[in-house]
Amino acid sequence: MKRRAFLRHSAALAALPLLRAPLSAAPLATARAPLRVNGARLNGWLARFDAVGRTPTGINRTAYSEADLAGRAFTLDLFREAGLAPRIDAAGNIYGRLEGSDRTRKPILIGSHVDSVTDGGNFDGPVGSFAAIEVARTLREQRVRLRHPVDVVVWSNEEGGTIGSKCAIGEITPADLDKVARSGKTIREGIALVGGDVARLSEAVLRKGDVACYMELHIEQGGLLEKAGLRIGVVQGIVGLRWFEVTVTGFANHAGATPMDQRQDAMLAAAKFAVAVNEAVTSVPGRQVATVGRMNVTPNTTNVIPGQVMLTVDLRDLDPAKIAHFTERFERLGREIGAATGTTFAFKRTVESEPASADPQVMGWIEASAASLGLTRQRMPSGAGHDAQELARIAPMGMIFVPSVGGISHSPREFTKPEDVAHGADVLLNAVIAADRR
Amino acid sequence: MKRRAFLRHSAALAALPLLRAPLSAAPLATARAPLRVNGARLNGWLARFDAVGRTPTGINRTAYSEADLAGRAFTLDLFREAGLAPRIDAAGNIYGRLEGSDRTRKPILIGSHVDSVTDGGNFDGPVGSFAAIEVARTLREQRVRLRHPVDVVVWSNEEGGTIGSKCAIGEITPADLDKVARSGKTIREGIALVGGDVARLSEAVLRKGDVACYMELHIEQGGLLEKAGLRIGVVQGIVGLRWFEVTVTGFANHAGATPMDQRQDAMLAAAKFAVAVNEAVTSVPGRQVATVGRMNVTPNTTNVIPGQVMLTVDLRDLDPAKIAHFTERFERLGREIGAATGTTFAFKRTVESEPASADPQVMGWIEASAASLGLTRQRMPSGAGHDAQELARIAPMGMIFVPSVGGISHSPREFTKPEDVAHGADVLLNAVIAADRR
Repeated sequence: MKRRAFLRHSAALAALPLLRAPLSAAPLATARAPLRVNGARLNGWLARFDAVGRTPTGINRTAYSEADLAGRAFTLDLFREAGLAPRIDAAGNIYGRLEGSDRTRKPILIGSHVDSVTDGGNFDGPVGSFAAIEVARTLREQRVRLRHPVDVVVWSNEEGGTIGSKCAIGEITPADLDKVARSGKTIREGIALVGGDVARLSEAVLRKGDVACYMELHIEQGGLLEKAGLRIGVVQGIVGLRWFEVTVTGFANHAGATPMDQRQDAMLAAAKFAVAVNEAVTSVPGRQVATVGRMNVTPNTTNVIPGQVMLTVDLRDLDPAKIAHFTERFERLGREIGAATGTTFAFKRTVESEPASADPQVMGWIEASAASLGLTRQRMPSGAGHDAQELARIAPMGMIFVPSVGGISHSPREFTKPEDVAHGADVLLNAVIAADRR
Repeated sequence: MKRRAFLRHSAALAALPLLRAPLSAAPLATARAPLRVNGARLNGWLARFDAVGRTPTGINRTAYSEADLAGRAFTLDLFREAGLAPRIDAAGNIYGRLEGSDRTRKPILIGSHVDSVTDGGNFDGPVGSFAAIEVARTLREQRVRLRHPVDVVVWSNEEGGTIGSKCAIGEITPADLDKVARSGKTIREGIALVGGDVARLSEAVLRKGDVACYMELHIEQGGLLEKAGLRIGVVQGIVGLRWFEVTVTGFANHAGATPMDQRQDAMLAAAKFAVAVNEAVTSVPGRQVATVGRMNVTPNTTNVIPGQVMLTVDLRDLDPAKIAHFTERFERLGREIGAATGTTFAFKRTVESEPASADPQVMGWIEASAASLGLTRQRMPSGAGHDAQELARIAPMGMIFVPSVGGISHSPREFTKPEDVAHGADVLLNAVIAADRR
């Protein structure tokens, strides 16, 4: 494989074909045939990784679980095989460096995450993480020495609210550390479990100027690219997000002996609220979304009127004003439904992220990289949250999307075609090279 | 205590006051001052029993759990102390006999259950079970020898669908035995655990004529008696019940990247259904009730559109035609909501019971007993299901209700005043004596 790759690169160097689209930033003088990653190797890693945390209901590598630890061990091996001596920072993020030739340059940071949601798929996170490792490995194998160091990063606990990357920009509070993750462990316990050290969290913080730029490859998780028949999405920005935990308190009573007009049914109130939230966000034009994803009922027994229901709302939009508007509207709906059903609604905001814009120059490098590879592309927003939204606070940020089959994600049926995974990694590789040239 | 009770009874025998209301069945010639149980002793048992299965969220003696086993051990001790050598039948029901003087007479059967719902109270079941033990103990201590044997019974797993009493009337199928109870064990495993033997279930079956009559004291679990300021409810019948498990299947997808108009949200569909069920049963006059008591969401994660929701509906009414009508209506609502939300609804009937009427003669004995004790009373239906509804299929049945404070039941706040517990047991005692005289 090594020899073939070397020959391939040599041939590419010799060919020097014309670029199919102009690079927006890299000087044309250095233009040459685009490098390519070893797509078969990259897809082989993903195929093997599919066995880690696989359950009958999907991939379950939720942060700090046994399967997450197994996934991280698998990933650490890939770092080592790539010659990237990995280190784990105080937040549990995994870093590996490919040294550059110019010691004055700050690193180009690339990566993603390997933890999953409950009952999720194998592509959300691993595609970008493994592609970043493959990009560094390709640069090393092809003896392409960049001026900048390339830092590959795998963020810890992305799905629980971009915890690892929030730590990396210094945005985690002691109260955040005490929150309980899906695994049942607190963030504090979880970070220790994956090899971090919350007492030294400040050492994990990256400040403005510490990083040349941050780029992340990710599956789209929606169906726009597939519908448009395009290969690459150039992300313009990531929507802002607000999570609510809504506790509806009624009164538990006998389901047979309590007349309908004497009930304080927390389930009925919660159901009315879930319907009203959906009606509210769909009643006005726009791309805003709201989801009631969790519902925990107490006592959750067939013949008892529920006394309490905890439900979550996930609200997203690119416009902070819209998020504020719907927050107010949901709280008002809770008060109205509570008054009508003899229940009370308590709202708690658990996770929050501001909309984040991609850097125009980084978008340009990504676009030019895709163009040089002959890949069709479009600019688009990201409806999903990503570690990149945190990094955007301290560095120029860009993201590359590859198509999700059927627009399906956070599901066992999540799938991205191997050729699209390879294309995405190729775009990342050449965008890193473009970034190095500035 | 024993001596005082003896003196009290002797005095009662000497007084022979006039009855305050005519007995409907017992010959007036045998009328005498009503006996009374030892109410302090009975309430003392209940107070001690409150510690068994008590958790921060309520009483949790769900059938076949560790706490249920502890509750049954406590109850077996009460049988032994009362001189009722207990035996456990093949269905796990506990029986103890007070012998009668006439060997040709079939037993008068009295009892209830000691298992609880999840997060329930201490009175639903134990009041009637312990009162039955106390009635037998009082008859023995007071040397009142009845012609009929008195069998005290504590049915197993009432809250999981009157399982023990269904076994006792031969209405449990092998498929029923494979169902999983709230404890996580199958009924089959649970019966073995509590000392039964499913291979010998036929030995536990009572047939028409095997029992002279069945009487059960129970808390009302509603607020009618308290509101009317009455002491005793004479139950006319028990509503029929139908339980559904409804599985709503949509498609799990990313809560951020999936536009609102491209979702197949099982939670939204389930919420619309819960609201529609409530609207349906409250849209026509009558005492019918329907409750969505359980909801289990998959994957139940904040940032994933739920792919599947399992919910339960508990439907009850005295009229079988109404139950059939609402069954059809709920299934139609499921089809309509499914079509509108891109989801499918699958209905499974898990538990079913026909409405059961109390026997007029037994009602008469209970009414006369209450009257002889000077206790105010009314006839009323039972909205809750009880083991008595099963026994009604093979024997004349009657039930005695005592007030539930605030109409609250299946809740940690379930409470019945000690004097009402004692009154209920007194009514049961004298109804047994009346039944013996026929």
